[in-house]
Amino acid sequence: MFSKLQRLTQPIRRMSTITIPNSKQAAHRLTMIPGPIEFSDDVLDAMSTPSQAHTSPDFIPVFQEVLQNTRKLFKSTNPTSQPIVISASGSLGWDIVGANFLNRGEKTLVFSTGFFSDRLADALGYYTETDVDVVKAPLGESVPLSEVEKALSAKSYDVVTITQVDTSSAVISDVEAIAKKIRSIQPEALIVVDAVCSAGVEDIQFDNWGLDYVLTASQKAVGVPAGLSISIASERAVNKALAKKRPTSYYANLQKWIPIMQAYEHGKGAYYATPPIQLIHALRVSLREILEQGLDNRFAKHAETSNNFKDKLESLGLKLVAKREFGANGLTAIYFPKSINGPDLLKKISDKGVTLSTGIYAGIATEYFRVGHMGVSAVGKDRHDVDIVFGLIKETLEELEK
Amino acid sequence: MFSKLQRLTQPIRRMSTITIPNSKQAAHRLTMIPGPIEFSDDVLDAMSTPSQAHTSPDFIPVFQEVLQNTRKLFKSTNPTSQPIVISASGSLGWDIVGANFLNRGEKTLVFSTGFFSDRLADALGYYTETDVDVVKAPLGESVPLSEVEKALSAKSYDVVTITQVDTSSAVISDVEAIAKKIRSIQPEALIVVDAVCSAGVEDIQFDNWGLDYVLTASQKAVGVPAGLSISIASERAVNKALAKKRPTSYYANLQKWIPIMQAYEHGKGAYYATPPIQLIHALRVSLREILEQGLDNRFAKHAETSNNFKDKLESLGLKLVAKREFGANGLTAIYFPKSINGPDLLKKISDKGVTLSTGIYAGIATEYFRVGHMGVSAVGKDRHDVDIVFGLIKETLEELEK
Repeated sequence: MFSKLQRLTQPIRRMSTITIPNSKQAAHRLTMIPGPIEFSDDVLDAMSTPSQAHTSPDFIPVFQEVLQNTRKLFKSTNPTSQPIVISASGSLGWDIVGANFLNRGEKTLVFSTGFFSDRLADALGYYTETDVDVVKAPLGESVPLSEVEKALSAKSYDVVTITQVDTSSAVISDVEAIAKKIRSIQPEALIVVDAVCSAGVEDIQFDNWGLDYVLTASQKAVGVPAGLSISIASERAVNKALAKKRPTSYYANLQKWIPIMQAYEHGKGAYYATPPIQLIHALRVSLREILEQGLDNRFAKHAETSNNFKDKLESLGLKLVAKREFGANGLTAIYFPKSINGPDLLKKISDKGVTLSTGIYAGIATEYFRVGHMGVSAVGKDRHDVDIVFGLIKETLEELEK
Repeated sequence: MFSKLQRLTQPIRRMSTITIPNSKQAAHRLTMIPGPIEFSDDVLDAMSTPSQAHTSPDFIPVFQEVLQNTRKLFKSTNPTSQPIVISASGSLGWDIVGANFLNRGEKTLVFSTGFFSDRLADALGYYTETDVDVVKAPLGESVPLSEVEKALSAKSYDVVTITQVDTSSAVISDVEAIAKKIRSIQPEALIVVDAVCSAGVEDIQFDNWGLDYVLTASQKAVGVPAGLSISIASERAVNKALAKKRPTSYYANLQKWIPIMQAYEHGKGAYYATPPIQLIHALRVSLREILEQGLDNRFAKHAETSNNFKDKLESLGLKLVAKREFGANGLTAIYFPKSINGPDLLKKISDKGVTLSTGIYAGIATEYFRVGHMGVSAVGKDRHDVDIVFGLIKETLEELEK
């Protein structure tokens, strides 16, 4: 399948690759970062779907199913909630918040567990043109409920954001508990959840937890190549967007996108900007795989893989960035042992055929590395990707410590 | 290659398909609209490239080559020009103009040849928060140079836009002549060219014509599935973006993107938002195909295909929306004969395995249809897609006129 492609994409330098058992994919460097993740064969096959018109009867039912299943991914059965799938990186979700759910001068509160929460705060400030309040969690932990209560009691907010898993710290926040606390103090505030590194691996109950907007990206636990901003908005979030007097973004303007999404979900084509047909085919395949597996089963399997991996890392004496009770299930952030040079570890593992990630949390970025364990690598049948990674970490540390 | 995929993407209703000779692609409905177009086998294969990290040594040289070749697509050799490739539909290019090259209250002039020029005017107004001046061309023609001169002499503008080919009217504008006229009257105005339906099929000389920003999308004559905003900015456009005091978009913020593009072009990874790895692999393949063919050769072949098709349509007595001297080479807009019901024609052709487009130009939308003839369908070796379409139009008109 990939022979001609291999010629076309011949790497500059010769690199080790890994052959995945029971896979049609060419041997390749295993991508074990917190997104993009490894993809299933069927998802990759769907990426090469021959051309289709965006309003053709070939494509409309595909997009329709994707929107219907996006609701399920977020466990929403409320017909007034609005799934949204747009061609973009996940970050566009932040512009969607700023351009639609906020007006100039409005007040925003961000609960930050790292780099990506801080970036979200930056992004929203572009739209409110006023300071965004940020409550930072201690390193390795989420924001304590007492701090949530204190911040919400001190000032009134239009939008409050929670980053479910910050990809920089590998910390998970208890969205249910924080959302409940926000609701109890400021019932009118819109609750936004950044689920870029959590949708598909951590539980999200859009309706039950009273959330207003949850955003994610395709290339993490959703299991699809990068290029899709995937989100869901509540009725009141939609109403605020529709009531905005002057749109402040063309591409992120929900006043235009909502009718498009509603048309496709009802089996009719519509046009605002051309949807990325092949990525949406791939998302259809991946959402089917996820839902066939069962969401709760998938979450439990991810947790099991993650806990085993973390246990084994700790048994080697390695220290994790996120305290275990705040540890996300889709990735692990691990301090380099003081005895070795961090970049050497990643370089050697890379030369053995596996890509891991450097750190990115301000202040400790050079002191740790990150391993992603989402999707097929963590829960795929007959996949042992996480064992391969653990074996390489152990072996390479021994080599470096010699 | 597509057997399992076919099961996964089984259409709701049974539809005719066409088998493309000498192609690995499964028989499918031929997509002959003005984008998305038909893709080459190698481009589709690249779409299923196994996962790669965005900063891995597998991917960096791929993105590097894409940026280098994007310059060539626009015939730019000036090292101060800046190619930009971002995950999004082509429309994001409009936000890039508004969010980076314009400030609130600044003046914009749009030369409009149809629906997409008008949308561009709308988009820019979101950012300038003031009226955008629009000079509309007569239906089927571009804006006369005398009108260009009149508008530029009456008022000072910060940004002036030209839509090289408006996909609604199939009219091509003489960008070289209009840009020269703008420069002669207002040398300081930034000249923006919407090349969504022209890059890869019509000549664009970024340096020679003194352009400041040219934007396109992947799914038209660039020959790659939808999902990439592709553009190039001049040094003074870049400088204006860098000098903007307060960014008004996170996702379209060139202050952030420019260092990323420069890093990749120099062979280094960098991160702002995750690039769509697979689409960028596909773009690498397509740009190689385009440049191997030779740009001028490619333009000439498109013109030949287009002229033959238009001649044959006129020989049937059909009337074209764009006057021949203003006819774009990548698509044709054709009035339905008064004797038939338009939707019936498209429906019957669709049932025979070819997707064509409805009209979209305000006021005449229901009176015409559009055929795209870009990329492999127009210039591919051993491809006869345009002949197939002409045959179906002729045959189906005869059936309907019986």
